[in-house]
Amino acid sequence: MSSVLLTRDDGVATLTLNRPDRLNAFTLDMGREFVAALREADADDAVRAIIVTGSGRAFCAGMELSDSDNVFGFDPRMDLTPAELRERWAEPEVTEGAREPGGKLTLAILECRKPVIAAINGPGVGIGSTMTLPMDARLASTDARMGFVFARLGITPEACSTWFLPRIVGPSRALDLLYSGDIIPAERALEIGLVDSVHSPADLLAAARAVADRMTLGRSAHAVALTRQLVWRHLASDDVLGAHLAESLALRHAAHGDGREGALAFLGKREARFTQPAPESFGHVFPSED
Amino acid sequence: MSSVLLTRDDGVATLTLNRPDRLNAFTLDMGREFVAALREADADDAVRAIIVTGSGRAFCAGMELSDSDNVFGFDPRMDLTPAELRERWAEPEVTEGAREPGGKLTLAILECRKPVIAAINGPGVGIGSTMTLPMDARLASTDARMGFVFARLGITPEACSTWFLPRIVGPSRALDLLYSGDIIPAERALEIGLVDSVHSPADLLAAARAVADRMTLGRSAHAVALTRQLVWRHLASDDVLGAHLAESLALRHAAHGDGREGALAFLGKREARFTQPAPESFGHVFPSED
Amino acid sequence: MSSVLLTRDDGVATLTLNRPDRLNAFTLDMGREFVAALREADADDAVRAIIVTGSGRAFCAGMELSDSDNVFGFDPRMDLTPAELRERWAEPEVTEGAREPGGKLTLAILECRKPVIAAINGPGVGIGSTMTLPMDARLASTDARMGFVFARLGITPEACSTWFLPRIVGPSRALDLLYSGDIIPAERALEIGLVDSVHSPADLLAAARAVADRMTLGRSAHAVALTRQLVWRHLASDDVLGAHLAESLALRHAAHGDGREGALAFLGKREARFTQPAPESFGHVFPSED
Repeated sequence: MSSVLLTRDDGVATLTLNRPDRLNAFTLDMGREFVAALREADADDAVRAIIVTGSGRAFCAGMELSDSDNVFGFDPRMDLTPAELRERWAEPEVTEGAREPGGKLTLAILECRKPVIAAINGPGVGIGSTMTLPMDARLASTDARMGFVFARLGITPEACSTWFLPRIVGPSRALDLLYSGDIIPAERALEIGLVDSVHSPADLLAAARAVADRMTLGRSAHAVALTRQLVWRHLASDDVLGAHLAESLALRHAAHGDGREGALAFLGKREARFTQPAPESFGHVFPSED
Repeated sequence: MSSVLLTRDDGVATLTLNRPDRLNAFTLDMGREFVAALREADADDAVRAIIVTGSGRAFCAGMELSDSDNVFGFDPRMDLTPAELRERWAEPEVTEGAREPGGKLTLAILECRKPVIAAINGPGVGIGSTMTLPMDARLASTDARMGFVFARLGITPEACSTWFLPRIVGPSRALDLLYSGDIIPAERALEIGLVDSVHSPADLLAAARAVADRMTLGRSAHAVALTRQLVWRHLASDDVLGAHLAESLALRHAAHGDGREGALAFLGKREARFTQPAPESFGHVFPSED
Repeated sequence: MSSVLLTRDDGVATLTLNRPDRLNAFTLDMGREFVAALREADADDAVRAIIVTGSGRAFCAGMELSDSDNVFGFDPRMDLTPAELRERWAEPEVTEGAREPGGKLTLAILECRKPVIAAINGPGVGIGSTMTLPMDARLASTDARMGFVFARLGITPEACSTWFLPRIVGPSRALDLLYSGDIIPAERALEIGLVDSVHSPADLLAAARAVADRMTLGRSAHAVALTRQLVWRHLASDDVLGAHLAESLALRHAAHGDGREGALAFLGKREARFTQPAPESFGHVFPSED
């Protein structure tokens, strides 16, 4: 059985973290399956948006600490001698820049052409919180809990959370969450802007579906894909003039496709019928980045 | 008759978008006239601040889609064949990076030496929303509506809005506004920080005037101009040390001019009489940028 | 008597600005003593966190304008001739980029390995406001006032405040504070996110102490130090992939130290006993920056 389920329903894909007996704790296998499922859904032109949720009562309880091949590069229960630890440190994957699995996940989310929406159905702790930061919307059920518990475990934040979190909740709140490791309820997460809305457990998936539809139904898939890349790449760029040039290129590419249909529909006071698919890559709009 | 009116009243210039019969829809001519009027007001040392508003019941209804020479580089009502479209695509202005008109406007606003204040008197849609993002304050009347309607029209956001909007309202709200294209009332815009205050239609211009005065009356025009450039350029710079050096240079230039008068007035418990004009350019403070 | 007092109490250091008869107005001597005391506290592995507060009824009333060797490079009461001023301008410290003292202070704060917490006990004006911006939390007493009064004095903002302030309160509010120079009460500062909480004067220091404990007690000093550098450096970096690599390196370094203890404690359902000290430098995690 897979640790990530991919389902599709009328244009919306759902990725479900699926280790409910372990509160969907994250393993390296889950990370690989998540990225594969995400890419499959993203490549499918019939999919307009992607929802991420958890199976059972949790969203994701964090890294599976008993996973012997886990992020730490060692099983913490193994009693390695200092010499053995030094040997580990000399391994190429460490010295040449081992990439921790959370960042691989969030960088894959950043590359998506479709809106990605978190439906946080229960506790989302550690990577269960950080993986949601590059998602386009975060909806929480009243059962949700979030926490960046790293410093309490003696480790440091991952999944590019030290980059995303201060840009979402501001530096003071980001530092408070990351130092304290406090686990906060959904209402507090809403108050500080860490989630965008809170719903009853029964309503959560329907609400996420409604957000997905509001972001994509009747909108140009081409325009939505380019908008997504423009916003996230420009949040990660200090170059305003470069933003102007990328927007100019994107607009030109849209104008002769769905943009023409959109303008004609507007002038004709009828509904637009968009057909331009999301571009397969973005080098034509961000030439210097790709 | 001009599509942009420039008036001056006791140190405050007002730029009025002036195609009221078309709800001040934006044309390429309006863009050129806006930039010219903005530069004229900005160059005039008798002008302390600049207010931007709309004539009639709208602020700006967006791009004039029936403008045959519009941003799309084609009249959407023309029934171009695929071969004709390909020909357009081969034009140098497209292949060598055509710059869309919204970005030309917002980059010109960024360069100003005076505070620029939006008085959004009615619907401000598409470029009617995006043009306000690099302004120093956004005041809305209760009649105002804002909307980033691009994806509904099959096109992508412009005017550097994908750069500014997430820095003003955060990434989640920026994406929600840009994907959905929803048109929101003034009160909602206030709630999410997209505008700074809401006023009755009758009070809007007086309120904008009061903000302009609060930002500039009794303040050093030299200090205000440098402050404006320091803030916007450093929002677009990841270099904290560079910010320190630019601030150090700015402070030195201020210290022997209005700064001396300010310190003497403070020590003498009298009102300061500032005389140092806004610098004509900023290369002496941002040597690496200019 | 020193203008900055350094005391230690059970793992928390307190730096007290100590010119109460001058409302703790800032002098160049105070700046040098502040940086020295900060570095001493930061280097002491027995110190978990650092609180900054003011002696007497003020936090810091701003730059001491009557300090003859002050930031302006001249005593404003001296009646320098234009020729004498030109001579000053030709001095190497000016032409080769004199660094104003506020930025030296805030850049030193950025380098700290421990959380730095502002306990703003009264008026904090000019540098009394700007020096708090790179601190990890800002607590205010109901007696606190804040104001970025530069333009009213004919000068420009310092201490990297034009970089920090828009990232903390957003560009519109930053510009409003910096242009207007208005002095705002603690409640308004809380409303706009300039401070994180407000307390009665009698409770302020205990509240700051509680925040310091919540950020560091039972947390790994190694993880806290790396988290601090990851967040502030990544707020000042547009490179998401670089953030991923730095986080990966930090996590590896933590994993074999406090991270192993943290995982074992978690799995054993016991309290962790962390022993890994804050690293002395950060070049092993940010190789490209150092």
